[in-house]
Amino acid sequence: MSKVRVHNFTTSLDGFGTGEGQTQAAPFGHAGERLHEWMFATRFWGEMIGAQSGHSGADHAFAAMHEPGIGAEIMGAGKFGPPGWQDDPDHRGWWGPNPPFHTPVFVLTHRPRPSIEMEGGTTFHFLNTTPAEALNVAREAAGGQDIRLGGGPTVVRDFVAEGLVDHMHVVQVPVLLGRGVRLWDGLESLEEAYDIETVSTPSGVTHLTFTAKTR
Amino acid sequence: MSKVRVHNFTTSLDGFGTGEGQTQAAPFGHAGERLHEWMFATRFWGEMIGAQSGHSGADHAFAAMHEPGIGAEIMGAGKFGPPGWQDDPDHRGWWGPNPPFHTPVFVLTHRPRPSIEMEGGTTFHFLNTTPAEALNVAREAAGGQDIRLGGGPTVVRDFVAEGLVDHMHVVQVPVLLGRGVRLWDGLESLEEAYDIETVSTPSGVTHLTFTAKTR
Repeated sequence: MSKVRVHNFTTSLDGFGTGEGQTQAAPFGHAGERLHEWMFATRFWGEMIGAQSGHSGADHAFAAMHEPGIGAEIMGAGKFGPPGWQDDPDHRGWWGPNPPFHTPVFVLTHRPRPSIEMEGGTTFHFLNTTPAEALNVAREAAGGQDIRLGGGPTVVRDFVAEGLVDHMHVVQVPVLLGRGVRLWDGLESLEEAYDIETVSTPSGVTHLTFTAKTR
Repeated sequence: MSKVRVHNFTTSLDGFGTGEGQTQAAPFGHAGERLHEWMFATRFWGEMIGAQSGHSGADHAFAAMHEPGIGAEIMGAGKFGPPGWQDDPDHRGWWGPNPPFHTPVFVLTHRPRPSIEMEGGTTFHFLNTTPAEALNVAREAAGGQDIRLGGGPTVVRDFVAEGLVDHMHVVQVPVLLGRGVRLWDGLESLEEAYDIETVSTPSGVTHLTFTAKTR
C-alpha cells in the first residue's frame, strides 16, 4: 500500500513548528525565515525557484526526498493561507498560479469550497473530514503513489497520533522561538512506534527520520 | 573570572529535563532511565561507579567534561532529594556517604538547614537566595575554579535567563516524555546570546553545546 510521508517539517529547538502571529506577509509568524534558512541554502530549493543555486550536501539530500513518488498531498487550513482566508472567495493559496505540488492537494478545513485547478498539475480540493477519511480520499487520487502530509504542526500531530504516518522527516533548528504551535504535544512515547535516526549536519541543523515499525 | 558550566544536562526530544512523578525510587519520575542510558554506556560512567566498563567514543568525551576544573556546584532542591526531603532532617542527598562531587555543593532551597560534610570532599550547603547571590557565594568557595550548575531544569533555566551561564552542554535523547519539567520555557531567542554547535553521535543522541558570546 502507498505510504504516508512527512518531509522537511522543521521545528525550533523548543519544538515549535510555526511561530505566533501568522499573516499574509509572515506565513510562519514571528519565526520569520529562521526555521527554513537551512532549506533555502540547498540545491533543492535553488532548482525549485529556478535559481540554479544552492549546495548539494546532506541538507540537500534530505530536502530533495520531498519530491519522488508523491501522488497527492494533504495539508491543514493554516498551510493554505493566513488566518481568515476562508472569508476570501478568491484566495488560491500562497504560491501563485503554479504551486510547487503538481498533484491533487487536499486542504482540511471546516469550511470547504469548490475545487480549484491551478497551473502545473496542482488541483486544490477542500475537505471537512477526519484524518483517516481524508487519507482514503487522497489515496484514491494518488494512483498508487505515496501521500505527502504537508503540515502544519497540528495536522502532522493529528495524523501521527492516529498511527497514519509511515515516514516522517523532522528538521530541528537550534533557535528558541518561545511561542507558536508545538509539534510534539500529545505524542508521549512515540519512540515505541518508530525507529528514529538522528544526524546533525554542518549547517547546524539536526535531521530526525522516523520510520514506522511494522504494525 | 571563573566560568559557570552546565554538563550532561539531558532532555527528551520534546524538551523535558525530567519526567512527572519524582520519588525516592524514581529520581526522574516517569522518564525512568530513558534520559540517561547514553551516559550509563560511557567509560566516564563506568569509572565513576568503579566498573571499568563503558565505551570511549564521543558520548564519553562529552560526559567526561563534567569533571575538570570545577571548584563548586550549585543545584536546585529537586536534585538534592525527592519532593518533601525538607521534612526529613536526616536526608543527605541521593548519593550515599561519598557523593560524586568532591567539592562544596550549594543547594538552593527555601528551607535551608545546617551544612553537611560528607566523605570524599563534598560538603552540602543550603542557600535561600537568588541565582546571582548564590553564584557569588559559590564562586568564593570555588577558589578560582569554575562553577558547575547541576540542574534540575528550573534552576538551569533561571540561571540562563539571567545571563549567568558561560558554557552549557545539553544532550537531546530521541524519546517523547510528553510531560514533566521543560528546560526551554521562557528562553526565546537564546541563540542570540550563544554560539551553538550540534552533533549527533552513533548512540542516537544529539549533543548541543552553547558557548556564550562575548558580553
